[in-house]
Amino acid sequence: MQFKIDAISGNARATTLTMAHGEVQTPVFMPVGTQGVVKALDHTDMLNLGAKIILGNTYHLYLRPTSKVVKKLGGLHGFSKFPNNFLTDSGGFQAFSLGKLDKKNTKQDENGIMFKSHIDGSMHYFTPQSVLDTQYDLGSDIMMILDDLVALPNTRERIELSIKRTTKWAKEAIEYHVSQKAKGIGTNQNIFAIIQGGTDKEFRKMSAEQLCAMSDYDGFAIGGLSVGELNNEMYDTVEYTVQFMPKDKPRYLMGVGTPEDLIENIDRGVDMFDCVMPTRNARNGTLFTTFGRINIRGAKFKEDGKPIDEACSCYTCQNYSRAYLNHLYRSGEMTYFRLASIHNLHYYLNLMKECREAILNDNWSEFKKEFYLKRGKK
Amino acid sequence: MQFKIDAISGNARATTLTMAHGEVQTPVFMPVGTQGVVKALDHTDMLNLGAKIILGNTYHLYLRPTSKVVKKLGGLHGFSKFPNNFLTDSGGFQAFSLGKLDKKNTKQDENGIMFKSHIDGSMHYFTPQSVLDTQYDLGSDIMMILDDLVALPNTRERIELSIKRTTKWAKEAIEYHVSQKAKGIGTNQNIFAIIQGGTDKEFRKMSAEQLCAMSDYDGFAIGGLSVGELNNEMYDTVEYTVQFMPKDKPRYLMGVGTPEDLIENIDRGVDMFDCVMPTRNARNGTLFTTFGRINIRGAKFKEDGKPIDEACSCYTCQNYSRAYLNHLYRSGEMTYFRLASIHNLHYYLNLMKECREAILNDNWSEFKKEFYLKRGKK
Repeated sequence: MQFKIDAISGNARATTLTMAHGEVQTPVFMPVGTQGVVKALDHTDMLNLGAKIILGNTYHLYLRPTSKVVKKLGGLHGFSKFPNNFLTDSGGFQAFSLGKLDKKNTKQDENGIMFKSHIDGSMHYFTPQSVLDTQYDLGSDIMMILDDLVALPNTRERIELSIKRTTKWAKEAIEYHVSQKAKGIGTNQNIFAIIQGGTDKEFRKMSAEQLCAMSDYDGFAIGGLSVGELNNEMYDTVEYTVQFMPKDKPRYLMGVGTPEDLIENIDRGVDMFDCVMPTRNARNGTLFTTFGRINIRGAKFKEDGKPIDEACSCYTCQNYSRAYLNHLYRSGEMTYFRLASIHNLHYYLNLMKECREAILNDNWSEFKKEFYLKRGKK
Repeated sequence: MQFKIDAISGNARATTLTMAHGEVQTPVFMPVGTQGVVKALDHTDMLNLGAKIILGNTYHLYLRPTSKVVKKLGGLHGFSKFPNNFLTDSGGFQAFSLGKLDKKNTKQDENGIMFKSHIDGSMHYFTPQSVLDTQYDLGSDIMMILDDLVALPNTRERIELSIKRTTKWAKEAIEYHVSQKAKGIGTNQNIFAIIQGGTDKEFRKMSAEQLCAMSDYDGFAIGGLSVGELNNEMYDTVEYTVQFMPKDKPRYLMGVGTPEDLIENIDRGVDMFDCVMPTRNARNGTLFTTFGRINIRGAKFKEDGKPIDEACSCYTCQNYSRAYLNHLYRSGEMTYFRLASIHNLHYYLNLMKECREAILNDNWSEFKKEFYLKRGKK
């Protein structure tokens, strides 16, 4: 990966990542395509939205259709036909969320995570090395390492253990990746480590320092947030952690968040984000606009001939009325899900474009003020 | 409506209907957009498929969002943004199918049909005039009259009653439409009557002669088929009925059918078709190809890198593998429904295009033979 800082305004950064499947300009929001597809959309929709990178979930793809099948069909790019970059997570988060639902069949030990497939009940074991093998098969442009994630709040002992394990696994992962690259495997693929530590500053510093010392990593993520803590705790944790992360590598905040969360964390120096929020909210009827959120299910939209957001240039707003979307939702028509997902993703991607523009113009703090003013907040 | 016969080959016809929203070349298959949308697709998808006419359901749209709302938003064209022609049914078929489920709340009398809304339980009464008022609001290019449909098999008395009522309602409808047009209402809208009579030749002749004598109708449909009778009974009934229908007006066989049904009925002189089959089958995994049907759910497609049909030029076949579609289906991804619906509708619309080509080249009977040969039949 080539990494270049294009501009800094306050603590907000505009950077460019150049990878095997093209350039990614930051701040960037990565739409989530869990099973090799962004829900309700296809690769042409993603290209029309201007997405340069989307996320795939290792856990899901490993189980179905299996990473071997994806590899046979040309990796995630050949399989889904999305020609730009893919980031794949490690499966650690799914093991974590499944673990909460199925404690009996999920076991973490010092070498990896044992879990039961939610599809056919078969047992599987993920190790720092095995999740990279899976991601080599998937052919993603950025691979995430296996980390040991814990729910918040939690005991100091458990959080400390998660840091210790995450560091151990990160060492094993980077050694394995370096040795695999030497054999010609994954040479076009980048690898990010994941900082843990809950909302405790001491732990975050410890985790960040241990991981960021491993200079073979292409970038670093802040993990273990957006898992139940307060918003301000999240912002404070990010603000504190970022200072221990290298300036010359991308910074990725995992699983975050609302438009406000993106603004607040860009303000604290984060470059990359992913979240199911725009697509999941679209499916629930919640649509993002420059003036805040609306719920399109509302009876007041039944005869409303205006687009979702008159300031929006997305395909949906250029074509359809709130009344039509309200009707499609109420009638249970699947078409609704695609049109709403296009709008919400356009909102997120466009917001990132505007943020970048503001940073390049060294106008970040004005832009941020403006963002809240339009919503009638702060 | 301007109606022109472009060519006849055997009994198969190639014709052109010119209406307010453009030309429709026949034989034509009209995709079904029950609630103002073809399921899983949008108006751009329909334009990309080359659809010149789609169907909307009066019953559904009348109840939700209501025809008043559709009118306020520019009729079906303004509401859905599909700029080509719409045909709307009368609601008679839905009253018929609901009637089978809810006999207590569905009552036909000599003036119309009383039924209970499947949405909110409210009671409604459709008359020959009221269903036209609704269709004036919807702004469809072809309006169907209220008919009295019966399930097959049925008693001679009930079928005779259905013919009598259908003729009475057809008279009332055309008188009402002529008077409304004189007032400037529905002047761009065409109206079709619907021939009933089950599979009984005497009854079909009676109904056809009574209706086709009403020369203000723009076209005639054969209704009351594809409701439980055998395939050959349907074909025989159509073959017999067509001879009593005017040559200089379009002939529409309602609710039919499989690709084979289309071929057989074009062979008997039918111009227009509609059916939920391509979109409904797509959603169930059944995909149409030049060599017959496949079910994409099958495990044998899990690693199959080929498109659904190598001879197909649709968007889905040009982009995606059977393996990807199989994966999307198995994973419950909504994207599957759109891609599969695009393929099946392309198959139907393209088949009609090929039929027309064959008729224009006076090559119909060869074409028909070829169609079955590719499927290894006849």
